[in-house]
Amino acid sequence: MTLSTSQDTGHTPLNVAILGATGAVGEELLRGLEERSFPVASLTLLASKRSAGTPLTFRDKRYVTRDVERVTEEELEAIDVAFFSAGSATSKTYWARFVQAGAVVIDNTSAFRMEPAIPLVVPEVNAEALEGHRGLIANPNCSTIQMMSPLKALHELAGLERVVVSSYQSASGAGRQAMDELRDQTINILNFKEPPVKRFIKRLAFDVIPLIGELKEDGESTEEEKMVKESQKILSLPALKVSATCVRVPTFVGHCLSINVELSRAFELSEAIEALASAEGVVLCEGDELPTTAEVAGQDEVWVGRVRRDPSRPHALNLWCAADNLRKGASTNAIQIAEALIARGLLKTIQL
Amino acid sequence: MTLSTSQDTGHTPLNVAILGATGAVGEELLRGLEERSFPVASLTLLASKRSAGTPLTFRDKRYVTRDVERVTEEELEAIDVAFFSAGSATSKTYWARFVQAGAVVIDNTSAFRMEPAIPLVVPEVNAEALEGHRGLIANPNCSTIQMMSPLKALHELAGLERVVVSSYQSASGAGRQAMDELRDQTINILNFKEPPVKRFIKRLAFDVIPLIGELKEDGESTEEEKMVKESQKILSLPALKVSATCVRVPTFVGHCLSINVELSRAFELSEAIEALASAEGVVLCEGDELPTTAEVAGQDEVWVGRVRRDPSRPHALNLWCAADNLRKGASTNAIQIAEALIARGLLKTIQL
Repeated sequence: MTLSTSQDTGHTPLNVAILGATGAVGEELLRGLEERSFPVASLTLLASKRSAGTPLTFRDKRYVTRDVERVTEEELEAIDVAFFSAGSATSKTYWARFVQAGAVVIDNTSAFRMEPAIPLVVPEVNAEALEGHRGLIANPNCSTIQMMSPLKALHELAGLERVVVSSYQSASGAGRQAMDELRDQTINILNFKEPPVKRFIKRLAFDVIPLIGELKEDGESTEEEKMVKESQKILSLPALKVSATCVRVPTFVGHCLSINVELSRAFELSEAIEALASAEGVVLCEGDELPTTAEVAGQDEVWVGRVRRDPSRPHALNLWCAADNLRKGASTNAIQIAEALIARGLLKTIQL
Repeated sequence: MTLSTSQDTGHTPLNVAILGATGAVGEELLRGLEERSFPVASLTLLASKRSAGTPLTFRDKRYVTRDVERVTEEELEAIDVAFFSAGSATSKTYWARFVQAGAVVIDNTSAFRMEPAIPLVVPEVNAEALEGHRGLIANPNCSTIQMMSPLKALHELAGLERVVVSSYQSASGAGRQAMDELRDQTINILNFKEPPVKRFIKRLAFDVIPLIGELKEDGESTEEEKMVKESQKILSLPALKVSATCVRVPTFVGHCLSINVELSRAFELSEAIEALASAEGVVLCEGDELPTTAEVAGQDEVWVGRVRRDPSRPHALNLWCAADNLRKGASTNAIQIAEALIARGLLKTIQL
């Protein structure tokens, strides 16, 4: 089942702020608010001092990003909802000021995701976790988000037992400069020059890098840990077994996942396909329709294909899953959280 | 443990033929025979009529490929060992003529791999399968070859139970023209032009394609089936559980694998690392040493890294494995088969 891409909520327009408006996700947040007809009364675009002064357009109107340090208390008090996408450190520095001034902060960083009291939400999957929020909502990791709706559908069918996932993550997951570096590396290689390596730990052009984030003591990476722990929290399955291997590949936008799923109970493959096809926010591809970054870049849905039984376990199947990491993996999901807050009456706005 | 890259066998020089000498693997066969000091008395380079007449160099001597149809019976009778790498149909057409004339054929195609009477060999793993051969030896699939030595080491440690593997396979696995297409697609995209799509089913440049080979009725691809069935045959574990997802990524040379392994018995991680480090033909990378195509292109070993426990099963671990698909995945393994035949006295050559 696909999501509508535009929603007229009929809600009182809101004062919206974006912190990190000049980044790759910030750009998609602006586009998404416009495409989805989000009820925006005023828009405050914020950035670090370094990125302040950048001109940006929203609904044909020109905005200039402002230094977040220079926002007044009065301005803060007017903000209803703030999207944070400027790195964990920035989120940790500013969230309390925004929340104390009455805004709901939807944070796209990993700063607060594993705090038990803070909702970590994929609206199709666990919008109910928004109830009782205290002003701060965490938007999950991009790779985690995209497997949640398919996994929930399979869980409801026959009980999730274990998930083994290998990722094919695009350069944009590391930000706009990382995308530029992939392009520059590629051009250099094609011109027989040494490729620049700054944002990535190794050359990414025409190669893959089997490490995203930092390596922990146990050999797992921080990105892999996110896929394990965030999945458990979002699905409310704290004992769910997940094993992840996160790999950067030389694509620009769109993450792909190869997922092996073991379920608890017997199921017909046709039932699994039906469950995935009717899952909210999922586009099911059959046969040799192969969802890749080409299909999903610029889309809000999670695309699933290559669904087939895995005979190596009694109740297992394999599937392939692709989504735009900047949109469903970040901006779209954040806006959907705001929409869910509106729908549930969970934004403390002053009604006119 | 690494393999020596050059071997002086002291064996009587052999009359060697290569069928498919102009291909990406053919080129590496020539290089490998030279690098490994293979005992070559004479070299006959063969190709299809279309590729006949191509000049090639071996040990500073110039050769010209000849149309395989024009080889005389007398010439055939002189050949001791023939490497076939010109596609399954060509192997099926010519193998019997070569074998009946007394040559041992080492076939790099999938034509005969699953024939029970035909040895399918990775020399570090099952060289004993060469005993009693009838003149035709099959070289396994590139992705299968590279996981055999690591998996055998883990099997000997604690018993292989199940393998879930996702691949990151380079364009060269589809041949030289596929590599050209990846380059041309990339250049076109960087120049804002439509990328040509001929050899691949979809655009590969800056994308990944989650299908290699043909889709079978059950949703598995023929490439995935090879990884399952060939692994069972090579490891002599017909009931081994393997689930594979094969994916093409925009790299030129070198295949990578994300492998989740479930073992039967308890083991210490240090024992697994030690087993892998001492496995024949394996280079073990520890910590943030990440084997990628950059490390393995042009190398004969299988590089293994990211070895870590998978806590989602009692006796499981994850590992990452990279190898040059044209070398260890094809030419090197084929030459190693010939070397093993020599070492075991299994080449029916006329001793001078």
